[in-house]
Amino acid sequence: MKNRIAFCLSDHTGVTVEAMARSVLSQFPAFEFSLIVLPFIDSPEKAQAAAARITATPDALAFTSVTDPTLRAILRESGVALFDLFELIVPAVESALGQAATPHGGQTHSMTHNYESRMDAVNFSLALDDGLQPQRLDQADLILVGVSRVGKTPTALYLALQYGLRAANYPLTPEDLAHPKLPEVLLANLPRLRALTISAERLAAIRQVRYPDSQYASQERCRAELAAAERLFKRHSLPVIDTTRMSVEEIAARLRH
Amino acid sequence: MKNRIAFCLSDHTGVTVEAMARSVLSQFPAFEFSLIVLPFIDSPEKAQAAAARITATPDALAFTSVTDPTLRAILRESGVALFDLFELIVPAVESALGQAATPHGGQTHSMTHNYESRMDAVNFSLALDDGLQPQRLDQADLILVGVSRVGKTPTALYLALQYGLRAANYPLTPEDLAHPKLPEVLLANLPRLRALTISAERLAAIRQVRYPDSQYASQERCRAELAAAERLFKRHSLPVIDTTRMSVEEIAARLRH
Repeated sequence: MKNRIAFCLSDHTGVTVEAMARSVLSQFPAFEFSLIVLPFIDSPEKAQAAAARITATPDALAFTSVTDPTLRAILRESGVALFDLFELIVPAVESALGQAATPHGGQTHSMTHNYESRMDAVNFSLALDDGLQPQRLDQADLILVGVSRVGKTPTALYLALQYGLRAANYPLTPEDLAHPKLPEVLLANLPRLRALTISAERLAAIRQVRYPDSQYASQERCRAELAAAERLFKRHSLPVIDTTRMSVEEIAARLRH
Repeated sequence: MKNRIAFCLSDHTGVTVEAMARSVLSQFPAFEFSLIVLPFIDSPEKAQAAAARITATPDALAFTSVTDPTLRAILRESGVALFDLFELIVPAVESALGQAATPHGGQTHSMTHNYESRMDAVNFSLALDDGLQPQRLDQADLILVGVSRVGKTPTALYLALQYGLRAANYPLTPEDLAHPKLPEVLLANLPRLRALTISAERLAAIRQVRYPDSQYASQERCRAELAAAERLFKRHSLPVIDTTRMSVEEIAARLRH
């Protein structure tokens, strides 16, 4: 296995260029890459410092999503093995649109727009976490329902932070599960309910970490709770997502679409 | 202003390809683009359905980060104006590494690794939100301190969700601010403290939304709290981030590095 350092340069947080670099580099399995993110490259001094650091690293690669043409020129001229995402992608878009790009710094990033509404959504999701303030459920964009530890809270927070959705979550307690129908407060908001489920093995493992050797974490108890919950989901025809093999980002992206 | 639809196709959540597309398209200010994300394109049927939808949309563009060569061929052969990020970037990396890529589906995405540790971090950050459980602060990777509504909670949650950092947050109350030193429980964890501040105008506006016309939301009160907090930060030489013009992603990326 050959080891290489790959730098990821950005004039913003570097999250996107890091994700792109990771995807591209995963197609070169003969190498093992260590990624170093250099965010906020937004001045000639920072671009020069970054270029110097990369040049000083043997066999380093560098991915960049910096937009400012002056800064990109500094990086390019330093002689590092540079993959400038804009230089690689923009020409193709130019020819499709029949128009030249207007390169500029301070680009629009998807994650920074709607800041206020996203912070409002985070506050909402925290305020309505775990069944709190059920009287406000009618203000939610989505209401996640499921048994304890199925993944509702992180998913709701991610929906709020990433997509600005006011995502509430409501845990189905053993009392709720003993009833033939969902609680009234949920039925009053039926179109916005989204159900989460998971395998009993996985749920038991997750609960086990928190409450080792408890009845709550036993496979029998998990299996019984999940079966009761799934009966309720079916009865009310809720859309259900099985989170067993999914990351919170995947669950959130599926809920959004 | 010319309007165009731009599709963003992914075999995963589509977050990265959407961010790339948005950055690239921001360099074409003569157009107004509407983005449509088509995530989880992971079968020939889904690729064909996506291609049909794009073909049926006049003048549509399509960015794709799908990795599977078979699916990419389906998209390419459909005749849509396709910007295949891998096709555009991988050849440059191949020549730098002197090795051909091994294209494959099911790529490694930066955001899905370390799922367990990230969920553990989210639970930790929620459990230690807003000064809860101060006896566990020694388990934190970072402890955000600042006055009420400076942005501690969303930042801590983002650090946990995105980077898997166990980020606690501790609000400086008027009582804390009246003391010449930070509370003992914080001083015991000094190396991990990170201070957040903000302009008094912005803080007042944020508090105003929550408690209109309150003393708590007045500019005088905000100014006095921030001045007292900044004195404490200076006294203990804490690293300080001014969140006035920053998104939660930016704050988090700066705290990480």
